[in-house]
Amino acid sequence: MPYTPPRSSCAPTSAPFELSLSTHPNNPHHRSSLTPVAFLLRAALITPRKLAIAHPERGYSFTYEQWAARCLSLAFALLSVPGFKTGDRVAVISPNAPLIADAHWAIPAAGGVITPINIRNTPKEVAYVLEHSGSTIILCDHEFTNLVPQNPGPGVTVIISKDSGGQDSSDEYETFLDRGWQAWQKAEQAELQKYKSRTKPSAEPKIGWKLLYAPQDEEQPIALCYTSGTTGRPKGVLTSHRGAYLSAVANAFEANITQDSVYLWVLPMFHACGWTYPWAVTASLGTHHTIRKVDNAVIWDALLNHGVSHYCGAPTVQIGLVNHPAATKLNRRVNVAVAASAPTANLLAKMESLNLHPVHVYGLTETYGPFTRRYFEPEWAKLDVDARARMMARQGHSYLTSDEVRVVRTESSTDANTDDLIDVERNGKETGEIVIRGNMTMLGYYNDTAATDKAVMKGWFHTGDLAVRHPGGEIQILDRGKDIIISGGENISSLMVEQELAAHKDVLECCVIARPHEKWGERGQAFVVLTEQAKQKLGDGVKQKGAEQNKTFIDELKHHCKGRMSGFAVPEWFDVVDELPKTSTGKVQKNVLRARFASKL
Amino acid sequence: MPYTPPRSSCAPTSAPFELSLSTHPNNPHHRSSLTPVAFLLRAALITPRKLAIAHPERGYSFTYEQWAARCLSLAFALLSVPGFKTGDRVAVISPNAPLIADAHWAIPAAGGVITPINIRNTPKEVAYVLEHSGSTIILCDHEFTNLVPQNPGPGVTVIISKDSGGQDSSDEYETFLDRGWQAWQKAEQAELQKYKSRTKPSAEPKIGWKLLYAPQDEEQPIALCYTSGTTGRPKGVLTSHRGAYLSAVANAFEANITQDSVYLWVLPMFHACGWTYPWAVTASLGTHHTIRKVDNAVIWDALLNHGVSHYCGAPTVQIGLVNHPAATKLNRRVNVAVAASAPTANLLAKMESLNLHPVHVYGLTETYGPFTRRYFEPEWAKLDVDARARMMARQGHSYLTSDEVRVVRTESSTDANTDDLIDVERNGKETGEIVIRGNMTMLGYYNDTAATDKAVMKGWFHTGDLAVRHPGGEIQILDRGKDIIISGGENISSLMVEQELAAHKDVLECCVIARPHEKWGERGQAFVVLTEQAKQKLGDGVKQKGAEQNKTFIDELKHHCKGRMSGFAVPEWFDVVDELPKTSTGKVQKNVLRARFASKL
Repeated sequence: MPYTPPRSSCAPTSAPFELSLSTHPNNPHHRSSLTPVAFLLRAALITPRKLAIAHPERGYSFTYEQWAARCLSLAFALLSVPGFKTGDRVAVISPNAPLIADAHWAIPAAGGVITPINIRNTPKEVAYVLEHSGSTIILCDHEFTNLVPQNPGPGVTVIISKDSGGQDSSDEYETFLDRGWQAWQKAEQAELQKYKSRTKPSAEPKIGWKLLYAPQDEEQPIALCYTSGTTGRPKGVLTSHRGAYLSAVANAFEANITQDSVYLWVLPMFHACGWTYPWAVTASLGTHHTIRKVDNAVIWDALLNHGVSHYCGAPTVQIGLVNHPAATKLNRRVNVAVAASAPTANLLAKMESLNLHPVHVYGLTETYGPFTRRYFEPEWAKLDVDARARMMARQGHSYLTSDEVRVVRTESSTDANTDDLIDVERNGKETGEIVIRGNMTMLGYYNDTAATDKAVMKGWFHTGDLAVRHPGGEIQILDRGKDIIISGGENISSLMVEQELAAHKDVLECCVIARPHEKWGERGQAFVVLTEQAKQKLGDGVKQKGAEQNKTFIDELKHHCKGRMSGFAVPEWFDVVDELPKTSTGKVQKNVLRARFASKL
Repeated sequence: MPYTPPRSSCAPTSAPFELSLSTHPNNPHHRSSLTPVAFLLRAALITPRKLAIAHPERGYSFTYEQWAARCLSLAFALLSVPGFKTGDRVAVISPNAPLIADAHWAIPAAGGVITPINIRNTPKEVAYVLEHSGSTIILCDHEFTNLVPQNPGPGVTVIISKDSGGQDSSDEYETFLDRGWQAWQKAEQAELQKYKSRTKPSAEPKIGWKLLYAPQDEEQPIALCYTSGTTGRPKGVLTSHRGAYLSAVANAFEANITQDSVYLWVLPMFHACGWTYPWAVTASLGTHHTIRKVDNAVIWDALLNHGVSHYCGAPTVQIGLVNHPAATKLNRRVNVAVAASAPTANLLAKMESLNLHPVHVYGLTETYGPFTRRYFEPEWAKLDVDARARMMARQGHSYLTSDEVRVVRTESSTDANTDDLIDVERNGKETGEIVIRGNMTMLGYYNDTAATDKAVMKGWFHTGDLAVRHPGGEIQILDRGKDIIISGGENISSLMVEQELAAHKDVLECCVIARPHEKWGERGQAFVVLTEQAKQKLGDGVKQKGAEQNKTFIDELKHHCKGRMSGFAVPEWFDVVDELPKTSTGKVQKNVLRARFASKL
């Protein structure tokens, strides 16, 4: 039976979009439990006929009224799976399509914990996550069924979506929704029956969302996101309704998302629940625009023709975008949250010329995505783009709803003789580890007390990122602990070297790693991707070791670096390459590059 | 000794602006207690040298760094008052000046409860509030010392501010701050001493804000605001840190206050803690601009010359403003939150022509100020100003962080046979009472269980406002219960009659009340203030009962009303007056007008 969007007419008095879900009946009158699920009900109530989610690739879209009804159907469908109970994990294997967006509302509304799966993982990695999380239901997009184990385990339900939006009558996901819709209708009928057969006047019958889960304890888990884990097994980051609510409000506020905003889904939603943007955009009554794949032509179409006002992505994503043939100056400002690293001067200038305005943010899966932002300072207006890029490169200060970010002496974290951590000096020089706590910090690693205890010491979550703190209090990452280059006893920030190297006019992007060195222990090894113009200018010889062009160019790069950093920090080796290996979220895979040299000394 | 802004140089490593205040040491790593006090520390950390509060009338202003240091000094000064303890009420008697803004940070930071006093109250009323609240400290502006009782009671400390901002060495408030500064220095020294004399390595010494109160229970009281109470004794509305935090975030978000915003203090800060805007503007890293008196020339100066981007005020405030000789079209949009009632079509057109853009909000002291907003709908773009004003007149939907607003059948609130309240139909017709609960609802009335129990029934706070709910779910107030006109068994909304009457081109503002009538029980009595042009056109005779101009004009008004409402709703009597009696917040005092007719039947 084809799926009929239930209640899309939303009879005015049927009231399925009350916010009542958010308040547990045992709460006092002055307290509603903070849960982001309330944002969808609110949007459906205030702007029912507004475009909630557009999915042009598959030719369908939903209004808020329709979307809320679909998500409610999904919640009931989950509840009707035999054995499903509050706290159960529901895995989602999906690219950026309505399926995974639906899941962000329906799973928590059913009392479940959304467990998004990285679709770039191998089947073996996925099998580990499914087993470790103990997911009892798997929602999977039809292009990623290879990631679902042949034998997913006893009692595990797998639902495949064709991403048809109800247009394909053989779409199992739509049949599942329909089953949920029927369960919903049945639950309402039962309520109405109870109401009619009452012997004395009683409260109104519960209908729609009111029938669903309302967490009394707002720190009940909402999501379980696995870190990609370059070393060891992936870890399951467990987050709460309260944390997701406050993080989503912060993201909406900090990015200035409003009722007029259109958010383009470049960042994968499986990555830390899309940094809470599924909830944040809806909290603002904005519109979601989903694309299944990061394709620059599709992105430019969305930017030019679909009113996109916001998107998020790593600098590597931006590089491809600004150099695409369709790149044109937009007639409005687009707000771009850039994470992983800051845009280089070249990239910043290029982006600004197209009316793409980057805001540098920083965070981890353990912090619900970004929790710091580099706030603009009025003095920047006077600076040239090089200096501005350097200022922007700092990770900045905590978000509105986060607690203060600190940089602490690493030894103080494990020193049993002290009760608290010791802050580094705010001098932009002393290096320490970034630590954070408060409402934007995960509950802990799921079923992994050892890992949690190792990460949460003395009441603070330890990020593993090394940083300095500037006199203005803003932090600046030097490196992930393992990315730092230790050369002749000196610590070299690979990020700093990259930032300076990328300022060279011929460099499109670059990456610097530690490579074993007989005399110095380690020395920098740079990988450089050239701009299109540089490629044409320098010819193919620039890539060939020993060729004249290669030697001349590398000398030029070394000279460029020498003017900008200490001699020991200048990379010893330079490789001109066609591209850099990257993760699904656009981060350069330094571990892959490092592996090339690990055993060569 | 004149006051020296302490630590205004803020040595980078002195770290007085950590957010640590917000986290009680007993909280787990994933939870910070929500308290708005953290917003000031955050602003001082991120933008220390930004203009925080400008007070041009007295020629002084403070940066965030300076302001945070002053507020910290005030907190220590309060703590150094003998006998002061956590939970104590501190009264503030002040116009919109830094004194009362300081109090919003320092009193909660010291663990106290801010108790702002309405400066338009009589000394007798103030004496009642001071006694009922049991305030042990009174901070009072020098122009309002007449409101402080001669004998404020044993153990009550009174501090008078000359509003000199430290420029006058005889200013008692500044001496008080200085005492606080010394206490702060002493506390730090003691901490440092303890730190130095440690026998084993220990945590860093607590300095600055870290020495102060951190609520573990985020629902600890933060403010006690007394309602003006047109009937009976004023009631003390007790609100919490959590509620103030979430309300301030909502106000910042809904009004789109950003780092570039300048908020003009037209709304009195003593009124429901200025709708949480002292906290909201600072959360956004914006600038406060205080003015001691609502003076249209001063407001226009601020609008034209000080970059004001936001202010709040009742329509009556706007009327004076748009008709002031200095009124000029501004070169930027100014966001105006309008409460008490919506702008009429005439006023809306006038405001828009000046680039003042009203947003209609609704709330009560019991809901931390506004908690609903009339969200713009795209269809309004097609409407003429008359129709738009009518759409805008609805009170709309709940704020982001508030629970859903309901309109319920009044009898269901007290019916012992039902557990819950019964919603009215969403048909724009059935009348009920507005009820609300959740994070933007007060804890209760201070020391008044009877009043709290009467207001909070079946888990919902009852506003006393009568309203309908439209098919779109938005609410529209018909009237305060006591303002409704009951004529021949029909309920007439005085607000509706006023809205329609005000659409007449000669009417500047108007008010309609119920007046006893022999046949119908009640009938409408209108009071009309003419526009300047109408005054000149119609002459003085229009105000004289029986005069020809008066008769002709009243006939014209009746004719105007007949085309816009049922016959029984057209007022029976019209008085043309020079002005309407108003409260300090610009609300028309219908009780004063009603008193004229109460016993005349």
